[in-house]
Amino acid sequence: MRKSKKTILSELKLHMEEGNIGLLQQNLNKVQSPVILDLLKDINTEEKATVFSLLDKELAYKTFKFLDYSTQKDLIKSLPYKQAAILLNGISTDDRTAFFEELPSAALNEFLRLLSTEERNITLTLLGYPESSVGRLMTPDYIAVKEDWTVKQVLDFVRENGKDTETINVIYVVDEKGILLDDIRIRAFLFVTPEKTVKELMDHNFLSLSPIDDQEVSVNIFRNNNRVALPVCDSFGVMLGIVTIDDVLRLAKEEDTEDIHKLGGLEALEEPYMNVSFFTLMKKRVGWLIVLFLGEMLTATAMGFFEDEISKAVVLALFVPLIISSGGNSGSQAATLIIRALAIGEVRISDWFRILKREIFSGVFLGFVLGLLGFLRIVVWSNFTNIYGEHSFRIASVVGLSLTGVVIWGTISGSMFPLLLKKAGFDPATSSAPFVATMVDVTGLVIYFSFALLILRGTVL
Amino acid sequence: MRKSKKTILSELKLHMEEGNIGLLQQNLNKVQSPVILDLLKDINTEEKATVFSLLDKELAYKTFKFLDYSTQKDLIKSLPYKQAAILLNGISTDDRTAFFEELPSAALNEFLRLLSTEERNITLTLLGYPESSVGRLMTPDYIAVKEDWTVKQVLDFVRENGKDTETINVIYVVDEKGILLDDIRIRAFLFVTPEKTVKELMDHNFLSLSPIDDQEVSVNIFRNNNRVALPVCDSFGVMLGIVTIDDVLRLAKEEDTEDIHKLGGLEALEEPYMNVSFFTLMKKRVGWLIVLFLGEMLTATAMGFFEDEISKAVVLALFVPLIISSGGNSGSQAATLIIRALAIGEVRISDWFRILKREIFSGVFLGFVLGLLGFLRIVVWSNFTNIYGEHSFRIASVVGLSLTGVVIWGTISGSMFPLLLKKAGFDPATSSAPFVATMVDVTGLVIYFSFALLILRGTVL
Repeated sequence: MRKSKKTILSELKLHMEEGNIGLLQQNLNKVQSPVILDLLKDINTEEKATVFSLLDKELAYKTFKFLDYSTQKDLIKSLPYKQAAILLNGISTDDRTAFFEELPSAALNEFLRLLSTEERNITLTLLGYPESSVGRLMTPDYIAVKEDWTVKQVLDFVRENGKDTETINVIYVVDEKGILLDDIRIRAFLFVTPEKTVKELMDHNFLSLSPIDDQEVSVNIFRNNNRVALPVCDSFGVMLGIVTIDDVLRLAKEEDTEDIHKLGGLEALEEPYMNVSFFTLMKKRVGWLIVLFLGEMLTATAMGFFEDEISKAVVLALFVPLIISSGGNSGSQAATLIIRALAIGEVRISDWFRILKREIFSGVFLGFVLGLLGFLRIVVWSNFTNIYGEHSFRIASVVGLSLTGVVIWGTISGSMFPLLLKKAGFDPATSSAPFVATMVDVTGLVIYFSFALLILRGTVL
Repeated sequence: MRKSKKTILSELKLHMEEGNIGLLQQNLNKVQSPVILDLLKDINTEEKATVFSLLDKELAYKTFKFLDYSTQKDLIKSLPYKQAAILLNGISTDDRTAFFEELPSAALNEFLRLLSTEERNITLTLLGYPESSVGRLMTPDYIAVKEDWTVKQVLDFVRENGKDTETINVIYVVDEKGILLDDIRIRAFLFVTPEKTVKELMDHNFLSLSPIDDQEVSVNIFRNNNRVALPVCDSFGVMLGIVTIDDVLRLAKEEDTEDIHKLGGLEALEEPYMNVSFFTLMKKRVGWLIVLFLGEMLTATAMGFFEDEISKAVVLALFVPLIISSGGNSGSQAATLIIRALAIGEVRISDWFRILKREIFSGVFLGFVLGLLGFLRIVVWSNFTNIYGEHSFRIASVVGLSLTGVVIWGTISGSMFPLLLKKAGFDPATSSAPFVATMVDVTGLVIYFSFALLILRGTVL
């Protein structure tokens, strides 16, 4: 994107190695935060602290904001008390809340002491809202005006107070009780004469969020409504703060990462893959692997019940992986579709019956296709090999019917399980695809051997 | 969120049923596009066309923009020629490009004829950029000024020309050749006296995109840089257009949905789950299921090689599902982690060796845990049952070692395969978790029976 980024980076590193602090400071403050972020990737915490102590305030805030949590924490700890306080006081309220949210409470108190009284109060208020609620995402830095003000008064007010606000793309109109009356885009003020009043620009038409709404709700509202900021109001309509689209873009990324990790059968990582410690990485992965392993142990138990049948017809064992994995794959597909559709608000729990109908048809179609393929595979093969014995047609029927049954069952349970989880108040993504697959594996064996008993009894069994 | 949405909706439906067009029109234009979108969900195409013919221009554009592709197409087709032209001419250029992009070329030409000459030219230019490139995402509606203009001149220019532009939060400074010199936030103009010149506000510090950049690149740049819009420049630095954050938010959602669907083992749906036709839904699902099925057929072939061993020791068959699914689960985990990390730019192909090292350690740790669990399960169980015969300790060793081997192999191949795919120019998400799981299933069987031959030869085998 920028042509000479590499050159800039190596120059900065050279200054650092040579201890040429003057030149380093001068050049650091010429570049933008992405370059500094790249530089920080390659240096240790002590060197990071040096870099931050040389940065201009504004640039330091901007850069700090995009560091991951562990780096932020290490950095705040290794900076002198006073510089840490400047950094913490300077970053915007919502970013600070996000930072504090992840701290253990002992460390939280330690860091809160670094804030000015005013900033501390704001942060504590925001921390009062439940985790992953809109309240934790909002910033109280916005511009509110009264409806009897003139456009000139508004613009003067913006000029005086706007520098610190998160966004001045939208101006909020509140009454004397603080109740939100309207939101007006700043551009509207540029298109009219200064004598007009705010009232004349109002259409009393606005969207607002509640501080106890789930953050996921706010993401979907932003996605569907083309806004750069949305106001947050309490149940009386009193305006509490705003949520801005840049935070929502980052939140959406985090939520999608969380869902993807859960779908992959692990707990969501909160830090980048490369930064997370090996211990944490294992903690997030081994838990679900063990749960799935214990679930999958039931397959050995289930197969144990059919040990006699297997010893009579070893050929049955050959198709076990094929059958259970087909059930697992169709279950994963259905679960993935429904989990994503729930996450982006395309379907709701109340749609369960329409989804069920759709997935029954899907299961029947997909099951028929795979069942037919499995049936044909054995019938065709049996012309070339004697592996299936004289009863190859019966065995083909068992495999074909089992595949159809298992795929139908996988598709239905894969689509319904996320809805049940959501209904019970859990995150539907937790019924990760591998989890559904494991459930279907165990039940799939029972379906398979039941068909075998039904069709092969009296011949090979 | 809005209290009386339900009431509003049922009122609108009542007016429609009663054919009270006057009242319907009046009430429709009082609400916001989300309410209309909800209304459109429950009515047929003909009724949708009625609603659109009653909407004010601005509201119609806003609402149209959020409809999915098939509804947009149906609507444009069922509206009278002239109204369709108004709708197509009115929606912003980037949305129109997104709409046309999905049309077959015959239909494209039909629709292009509905545009004014000027709008048609703009759209054709945008369609010239490769699919999923930044060029397709940009809009040429932005405000550009010269560096010798005064602040007053800029504000007057905005007042005259700003109404149609996508965003006036950022003003772009270009020279007489159209080369981008700087971007300045509109708020900066509000904080200074009208006599200052643009030059005095410039810091010559800006980020820009190339029209041939991949759209995914632009998503990550927005995520990391707190911008509401970014300029797009050609290789000479000439400004071509801007990309706005609202489009990026929607794009990020689409890309994540695509990745999630691929990870779930199906082709990405381009429409909402509930809207997509049954035929399309099956087309997107059956393909991968068949591919995975054909892959999984190799398990039957692999097990066929060991049929003699299975008939000698049926107990071996009991653990086949447990062992191959453990390999599959660990492979899915690793693949999911790396695919997501690649998508959000946390890791690059060049990091492959660091990833490999990490995943070898992970595989060894996870494999050891699961192997130990499997080993202990059999040893403990054999005290209560005779199912494993006199050689239960040997069988426990085979299962334990196989689990360890399979998990290590699954972890390594799951993490490396996405990198290989990306290196070869494919989308890494295509090596969906089930695909890796299938690969590992087949090889897992070979690992299992190899350990069995090694340890059990001379006893049960």
